[in-house]
Amino acid sequence: MIMKKFINNPDDLTAELLEGYCAAHPEQVKLVSEKIVARATPKEEGKVAMLTLGGAGHEPALSGFVGEGMLDASVVGDIFAAPSAPKVVEAMRMLKRDAGILFVVLNHAGDVMSGNMALEMAKDEGINVKMILTHEDIAPGADAPIEDRRGLAGCIPLYKVAGAAAERGMSLDEVYAVAEKMNNNMATLAVAIKTATHPQSGEAIFELADDEMEIGMGQHGEAGTGRSKLLTADETAEKMAAQVLPAANCASGDKIMLMINGTGSTTLMELFIVFRAVKRYAESQGMTVAHAMVDEYLTVQEMAGFQMVAAKLDDQLVDLLKAPSDAPFWVTR
Amino acid sequence: MIMKKFINNPDDLTAELLEGYCAAHPEQVKLVSEKIVARATPKEEGKVAMLTLGGAGHEPALSGFVGEGMLDASVVGDIFAAPSAPKVVEAMRMLKRDAGILFVVLNHAGDVMSGNMALEMAKDEGINVKMILTHEDIAPGADAPIEDRRGLAGCIPLYKVAGAAAERGMSLDEVYAVAEKMNNNMATLAVAIKTATHPQSGEAIFELADDEMEIGMGQHGEAGTGRSKLLTADETAEKMAAQVLPAANCASGDKIMLMINGTGSTTLMELFIVFRAVKRYAESQGMTVAHAMVDEYLTVQEMAGFQMVAAKLDDQLVDLLKAPSDAPFWVTR
Repeated sequence: MIMKKFINNPDDLTAELLEGYCAAHPEQVKLVSEKIVARATPKEEGKVAMLTLGGAGHEPALSGFVGEGMLDASVVGDIFAAPSAPKVVEAMRMLKRDAGILFVVLNHAGDVMSGNMALEMAKDEGINVKMILTHEDIAPGADAPIEDRRGLAGCIPLYKVAGAAAERGMSLDEVYAVAEKMNNNMATLAVAIKTATHPQSGEAIFELADDEMEIGMGQHGEAGTGRSKLLTADETAEKMAAQVLPAANCASGDKIMLMINGTGSTTLMELFIVFRAVKRYAESQGMTVAHAMVDEYLTVQEMAGFQMVAAKLDDQLVDLLKAPSDAPFWVTR
Repeated sequence: MIMKKFINNPDDLTAELLEGYCAAHPEQVKLVSEKIVARATPKEEGKVAMLTLGGAGHEPALSGFVGEGMLDASVVGDIFAAPSAPKVVEAMRMLKRDAGILFVVLNHAGDVMSGNMALEMAKDEGINVKMILTHEDIAPGADAPIEDRRGLAGCIPLYKVAGAAAERGMSLDEVYAVAEKMNNNMATLAVAIKTATHPQSGEAIFELADDEMEIGMGQHGEAGTGRSKLLTADETAEKMAAQVLPAANCASGDKIMLMINGTGSTTLMELFIVFRAVKRYAESQGMTVAHAMVDEYLTVQEMAGFQMVAAKLDDQLVDLLKAPSDAPFWVTR
């Protein structure tokens, strides 16, 4: 079976994609070292720096969100693989400042291992850095232990609220508190209907029958919890929303954020149809959608499916979500 | 074979997607009548109005580009089908003003027929409207008669430059001249490597062997001109750029626009790898990329492939491409 992708040598994927990404957005981002993407015009001392890490292959995540009002830098691993701890420390040295660094890590074993090692090394060097772990996946149950709950696309609105807080000059403790409020009031559930091809091995990342879907699928093909026959868009949306909204502490009278994140080959047409159904469902429960996001933000190669992310918002979070940003994949005026 | 898409009744696709789209971007767009998307806050008299028409199923095109600095309204057909002429006239009546309307039509038989009929009906009603036809596809050859050259994703940068000119208060003749300059200096070539499923019929829109690609494929599965064995990303990019750049009048010393438009399931990772190769090629020919666009702008459901659009720019076009816009899928600060 020949892999049908526009690539060259599979060993060069990450280097080539980062070269292309930074060349396409030269006013916003720059490759400052191998696998470290930073703002083209770094913001001076005095502002808390925002840093994240994660594997490639999920474009536009994570480097698509480096820019004014969001991240200062991202450290990129190979396809679906965490970067090394020394690489992360290199980025921390670059961002070192009195105001400190907020370091956002998505809960995946490799990312957490690199993140924790880097954190210790940085602290030994006197770098002021605070880490926050996202873990908003509710596939194993909303009450499952944090270590079982993966970090999915919810990291992106979290970058936004914390990044906007940092841009406004809030202290590291204040920025951390904003991020923690988002982290404690968001939930995500994914669904997949078609697999994807790993662009290095050429192998399918999971198998699914022609009439099946799987709710709870992870963003690297990790098994979910709800394999079933295909449902319609509205049935899928309502079934998932009924789990995601309460897990994000959203109740009648609340303002909420709704994000429908396409994971690859699912069309924007389908994402809008699903969004419409989730919004109707949320409104039937007395909630108001104060911030909507429907697009591809964190993909799994060409996997067909989406992640539904909900968050309970207060006035501060609404304001920070709508604050200015020039990150290439989240521009707000 | 079961169609694996998140849809409900296939007859409701367009209505549901437009409901979802407008609900996701309430500050920018509004469904003002069945299948007419307009700015949520219309700009008053005095400004030339920008209007387009086209089938659904290509999201974010075309309605994703309605907003300040781009389109005033789009008239939407059913999946891959033109809207009716009376529907287009309804939108023209809505936009009627002394400053006039620039009406952008992509060269496809159904769109042109509806567009021409609407134009005559509107003129009988005393509506001041000027039509421009995009036809930048070079699959049949850069010198083929205009009627054989389809309008592809080049309409989007054309909306941008003409829309920005209109926003600055230029007259209809001036806005038309800007659009015409873009139209006469741009070229597009598409490539497909995997087919898509029509979301109403459930049928594949074309067939392609496991080791084949087709250069010149249209955006509804129309046959291309260059079926071949799969090439690498760099080989594909260079082969296409060698045709597209001269057809767009780009030569050594020129500032150019380069757009790599993903048509569906091709990942952003691949698009950036291809962009990198085209940029290197253009630079090797003495050109400078003054404006880059790499994303999904006009899709063909989940077709794998991309459209390469190039344009020769002057200072006015660079300035207009970078002018402010709040269209949901082209936000510029």
